Order: sequence, then structure tokens, then C-alpha cells
Amino acid sequence: MKEFELSPQPDDERLTEDVSGIDQTGAAVDTRVVVEKPLTLYLNGQEIVTMMTIGDHPDCLAVGYLLNQNMLRPDDTLTGIDVDEELSVVVVRTERVTDFEEKLKKKTLTSGCAQGTAFGDIMEHFDEIKLPGDALLKTSWIYSLSRKINQQPSLYLTAGAIHGCVLCFEDRPLIYMEDVGRHNAIDKIAGWMFLNGMTAADKIFYTTGRLTSEMVIKTVRMGIPIVISRSGFTAWGVDLARQAKLTLIGRAKGKRFLCLAGQDRLIFDAKIDE
Amino acid sequence: MKEFELSPQPDDERLTEDVSGIDQTGAAVDTRVVVEKPLTLYLNGQEIVTMMTIGDHPDCLAVGYLLNQNMLRPDDTLTGIDVDEELSVVVVRTERVTDFEEKLKKKTLTSGCAQGTAFGDIMEHFDEIKLPGDALLKTSWIYSLSRKINQQPSLYLTAGAIHGCVLCFEDRPLIYMEDVGRHNAIDKIAGWMFLNGMTAADKIFYTTGRLTSEMVIKTVRMGIPIVISRSGFTAWGVDLARQAKLTLIGRAKGKRFLCLAGQDRLIFDAKIDE
Repeated sequence: MKEFELSPQPDDERLTEDVSGIDQTGAAVDTRVVVEKPLTLYLNGQEIVTMMTIGDHPDCLAVGYLLNQNMLRPDDTLTGIDVDEELSVVVVRTERVTDFEEKLKKKTLTSGCAQGTAFGDIMEHFDEIKLPGDALLKTSWIYSLSRKINQQPSLYLTAGAIHGCVLCFEDRPLIYMEDVGRHNAIDKIAGWMFLNGMTAADKIFYTTGRLTSEMVIKTVRMGIPIVISRSGFTAWGVDLARQAKLTLIGRAKGKRFLCLAGQDRLIFDAKIDE
Repeated sequence: MKEFELSPQPDDERLTEDVSGIDQTGAAVDTRVVVEKPLTLYLNGQEIVTMMTIGDHPDCLAVGYLLNQNMLRPDDTLTGIDVDEELSVVVVRTERVTDFEEKLKKKTLTSGCAQGTAFGDIMEHFDEIKLPGDALLKTSWIYSLSRKINQQPSLYLTAGAIHGCVLCFEDRPLIYMEDVGRHNAIDKIAGWMFLNGMTAADKIFYTTGRLTSEMVIKTVRMGIPIVISRSGFTAWGVDLARQAKLTLIGRAKGKRFLCLAGQDRLIFDAKIDE
């Protein structure tokens, strides 16, 4: 698969808007700003959630969200994904009859919203996941991936205020998704992998966002053994990475990084002072 | 009220942990990392939500969350807030009998989780809010607030990977809260204002995080006429600010900023080239 098989489309007029304002001198300024709009997700006639999203790849976002919430199973067969852009609705249909009335109710009562909602559910099978031990990460790949991703045209470079997630193989960024929330961007990657039958065991997951507990849990659930972030991490994120034997790299900027978990996968092949 | 009446406590050992890892040379490194732990919120015996939080000011977080979700009303009388640190539980009690069984159910079905959950509910009274037109914002205050906030000891400076929200009056930062999510930090400010009977009409709200629709909606719901962020904004965030006649300042760094809504409140009193 070639580099950036899928990558952000900063020229897509649906994803940004020109907004007029003034700067510190009072001068009129036009600035490109990412859009953010609601997308309501149904699974087989059951309304699940309304997400705030930039709106590209609604099929990937929908499927990835459902997978990361344990509402779709890895072995489910999809019979259709209907996107209605005008109504801002996406409907995912499965062969299996799904019924989440009770689960949705319970979910709100046991966890709920914002960062929390997902949590009760996505922890469900966390302990059972075994990440492959033979995956490797060369330090030269970390530098190479960071450079390529930072230089790739993106909504981040054009308009800012957005997070990116990238599925990588060795030193090659493959699938680069962006969205207003980190969680949407990672869900889109998960959905793309499912829809394209992509293996996870030999991949690397790169994100611009912080490695909080949810990001670590989602990476582990996706079966990817290595995560790299140019931002920081929380203590619980690191704890969970260690439990799952995930290699966690944070604060990857320039030639610097920190590895807080799964150090045994690292190969120091890059010169630091080059 | 004096500057930084309440501000982050980076030396509080409960808020950070030392985590060991290695750096890009393979050398062992200890780094301070913010903690993140679940806090389950009850309102009068009804379980509402589990939030991921650094854990300081659980009373403010709980009350602010309930206010910003329309579950507490501004005129409600609290009869108690019980925090059980061991169980990670906070219980808010009101004089009024509350019953959210139906609302919680409906909320999940109409919106749901992550960024989305809150949305259905917090938009509910958005149109009715009138922000005071006579509030002013001197550009010198923007520079002064940014400088003071950036220099104040914080978990951000100590450990990173955290967002800050600050309630300000003119050029004085008053209440500075931090948390792993922007939404928690703003909820803590809302809770503190409620618990301390603080007026909103003459205040300024400063945040390190992006001004997405939810942040704008929460600021407006709190009745604060001016919001300043050092990060960016989304198109919908700007739209909502204009609807509510909120003054929205983004990308406030050094002597630069952009004002995208409510420009009429600005007074250009600062020299730009100083």
C-alpha cells in the first residue's frame, strides 16, 4: 500500500469555511476555520448517538464508533451503510439483529457522557486482548513518520483546531484521518480498517492528541501494538498501556521522544545527533 | 477579590505521578505525569455519569456539570455535597425532588456520548440567553491575562497534557482550574461560581483549549459575555458566539489575537509594537 493512500483534503470546500473577524490592530482578517456539524448514527433502526464531526468519511466514523463501543463485533457482517448528507444521518445495518435498548440505558446510568460515556463499555473486553509481542519499532521510523505526517497537507496546517490520527506501517504513513475530536479521528481509522479488512498486528498508530486512557484503550482494542503521540500522556494511559503490553511513545517532537511502556519493541537504529 | 484566589496546585501529590521510561537515547527518564481517575456523580440518589478527572475540586466539577447539563437550575437550593474519595463518588443533594430517569434515557437515544452527549440538553435554553451588552474588553487586558496565566505555576507547566480555564475580571485572573478535559475545567469554573454566588456579567472567561460549539454554549449558559482562547475555534463555535452576542477571541498568543464575534466590546488601548 502506498504512502498516504488516504489523507486529509484541505481543499474540500465542505470541510472549512472562511470566517471574517479583526486582528489585534483592528484590521479586517479572513481566516479558514474547520467546520463542525452533528451526525446522528443509527444501528439497524436504533438511534445511538449524535457526534460532532467535520463530516468526511461518515461511514468510517460510524463503523469505527460502533466497533470501539462493542456495539459491532469484529465478526459482524454489514449489509449496508446509508449516509444522508442532507439529514446528517448515517445508518449502519448488520446481518445480526442488534438490540441496545437496555445497553444504552445502562450505559448512561453507569457512565454517561463527555469523556466518560464510552468508558464502561470499551473496558469490557480489555483484559482479554493480547497484543503481538514480535512487533518492532525502529527509532528511525518514529522520526520519519513524524516528519512525513507534519509535512503532509492537512486541515491542521490549513486551519488548525483539529486532531489527526494516522495508521502506519514501518516508516510509511498509510491512512491519515482528521477530526475536531481525537476520538472521532481514531474511530475513523478503526472503521476504515474494518471496512478494508486491514490487519492490525504489524501496524503503528500515530496521533497528534494526548494519550489519555480512552486513546490507549481504543488502540489496544484495535489490536495495534504500538502508539506514538507528539503530545503528552496521563498516568492512567501509561498504566493501561503497560497492562496490555502496548508500546507507548509520547512527546515525539524533532529527535526527541519518551517511551513509557513496551520498551522491549524499540530498536535504536537512528543517530540522534544527525 | 485578589488575583489567583484559586489556582492550580502542582505540588499536590495526588494530582501527578512520577512515571519511569526511556528517552530517544535509551537513557532512563523519570517524568511527572498528571493522574486521571474516574469520579461517579449522583444527583439525589440517581447515578448520572462517570467522569475522568484529575480529582481536585470534585464539588465544583459535580455542580458545574449538573448546571451545564440543565439538571441543576440556577435557583436550586443545595442541601449537601458529599465526596467519598475512596469510592470516587460525589453526591449532590437538592431541596427540589429531581427525576431524570426519562431524561437520561432520552438523552442517550437522541445524542449520546463523547462530544455529543451533552449537546441535546445544553442547547435547550440557548436561544433565551441575553448576554449583557455593556461589558467591555480592553486589548491590554488580553495581553495581561495571557501573560499572568502563562506564568502562574500550574500542572500544565509541571506535567503538560492538561487544559486550563480561568475566570477573570478586567486584567485579573481570579479562579484558575485545570483538568484532563476542557469540559471538566469549564464545569469546575461554573460550579465554583454557583457555590460562591459569583456574578457572570462583568467577567471574562479564558481557556487554553479550542473554542468548539460546546465551549461556546457553556460560556453563554454561564452568562459570561467574553471568551478568550489561546487555541483556535470551529466555524460553528463562531456562529453560536455571534448568535448569542458573545465576544470571541481566539489564537491569543503574544501580542496577536483574532476577534471573530462581538467586536463592538473591544477597546484598542494597547500599543502593538511595544
